Amino acid sequence: MPVQAVCLLDGGTLVIDGFHVFWNVGPAGEVRFPCYSVLVQHSEGTVLYDTGYDLEHVNKVLPFEKPQQTDEQTIPGQLSLLSLSPTDVTHVVNSHYHFDHCGGNHFCTNAVTVCHAAELEASRNPQPFEKLGYSDASYDLDARYELVKGDCELMSGIELIETPGHTTGHYSMLVSPPGRAPMLFTGDACYTRENLDRNIASSFHVDPVAALESMERLRQVAREREADIFFSHDAASYAGYQLAPVPYR
Amino acid sequence: MPVQAVCLLDGGTLVIDGFHVFWNVGPAGEVRFPCYSVLVQHSEGTVLYDTGYDLEHVNKVLPFEKPQQTDEQTIPGQLSLLSLSPTDVTHVVNSHYHFDHCGGNHFCTNAVTVCHAAELEASRNPQPFEKLGYSDASYDLDARYELVKGDCELMSGIELIETPGHTTGHYSMLVSPPGRAPMLFTGDACYTRENLDRNIASSFHVDPVAALESMERLRQVAREREADIFFSHDAASYAGYQLAPVPYR
Repeated sequence: MPVQAVCLLDGGTLVIDGFHVFWNVGPAGEVRFPCYSVLVQHSEGTVLYDTGYDLEHVNKVLPFEKPQQTDEQTIPGQLSLLSLSPTDVTHVVNSHYHFDHCGGNHFCTNAVTVCHAAELEASRNPQPFEKLGYSDASYDLDARYELVKGDCELMSGIELIETPGHTTGHYSMLVSPPGRAPMLFTGDACYTRENLDRNIASSFHVDPVAALESMERLRQVAREREADIFFSHDAASYAGYQLAPVPYR
Repeated sequence: MPVQAVCLLDGGTLVIDGFHVFWNVGPAGEVRFPCYSVLVQHSEGTVLYDTGYDLEHVNKVLPFEKPQQTDEQTIPGQLSLLSLSPTDVTHVVNSHYHFDHCGGNHFCTNAVTVCHAAELEASRNPQPFEKLGYSDASYDLDARYELVKGDCELMSGIELIETPGHTTGHYSMLVSPPGRAPMLFTGDACYTRENLDRNIASSFHVDPVAALESMERLRQVAREREADIFFSHDAASYAGYQLAPVPYR
């Protein structure tokens, strides 16, 4: 099987308000949530889906998100648990370009950067309300892009599912390991299981109607492909996930 | 001059969170804000722009908005200050169909109801996240509609300005009294002066990009027509407004 192993790379935590997690509904109050990246070891390459946040950037630009990240919770720190280095990564896939999903791109100097063409455009020309989200532009320095659109298969068993709404060109990822159910990584198309169960989008979005359509799309893909859903920022679910160096395969 | 007088009809207050007033930015915390309607006495009719909220509905469906409304702060109570009755109203114009803007429509049994065609459609088929906003459907019982689209002049000196984003078919209103500067009623296209100054939309919206475009439209109309802007839910500004029975003219 071309997909060899999938590892979740812990990236530390951030804080937002409950009104940000569950748009207009809440309840209010601080919510601390995990950030993580997904490493897919594949016969054709080493793929990294998202790269977490850069601690220095968050401390400087968004300190109110109260980052907690150890050296081990950086991309180099997590890859070292697998005896890998960032230069071993051949493909960085970004779900989108919010700062907490691309802050470690700059470590992966040998990788091609795969993203939605519309996302790159939007991140470079953000709406006024998107400027903080897109505030870490370090991903765009010296990157070699492979721009894609629509649903697409990156490699055999690694599919990108177009899920706009949170941002203009957002991608979720469906990975099919050899010995277990497919894994559907929502990215920020769905922060938590509770968002899906209650059908409430997050408050960070560019198109809330599309955001709900994308959540429905995720339900549909999970059902049709009998996939397990992995949410992007769900402390409760995260407590049950296997983290690197333990692989899913 | 065809516009004879403009009166602001106090409709009591409600509470929402600061994260609802200033989308994603806040600060958090309860914000109590006024609701009001606008009566335009015109040579061709008696026009009422919005009709506030129905206290019983809010207490039943959205008690967390902590309504405070006296009998005098209802449409009949306010009109009686002007020696008018709801049956004297010839035209109800709804900026949109959120419950706090159409709760008194049902009193105006002789009026034709003027609204954006797309707003009526949207209010009858709301997005999941719009259901609470559109929860008071009493406006739709026995109403005789005059559906309009685009910018339009209702009567000489009463112009409806299309300002979508908060809802699909939202209208602001520009009224030109005989002896003072034109009055631009934003409706919920802009809750407060601070929203306009900081260029932050409210968190209740169906299209945030359109919401910002509509705020820009309001700035442009105010500038070009040298109009005074009246915000829909701005406690600080409201303290400086003349309320019925004192007219603007």
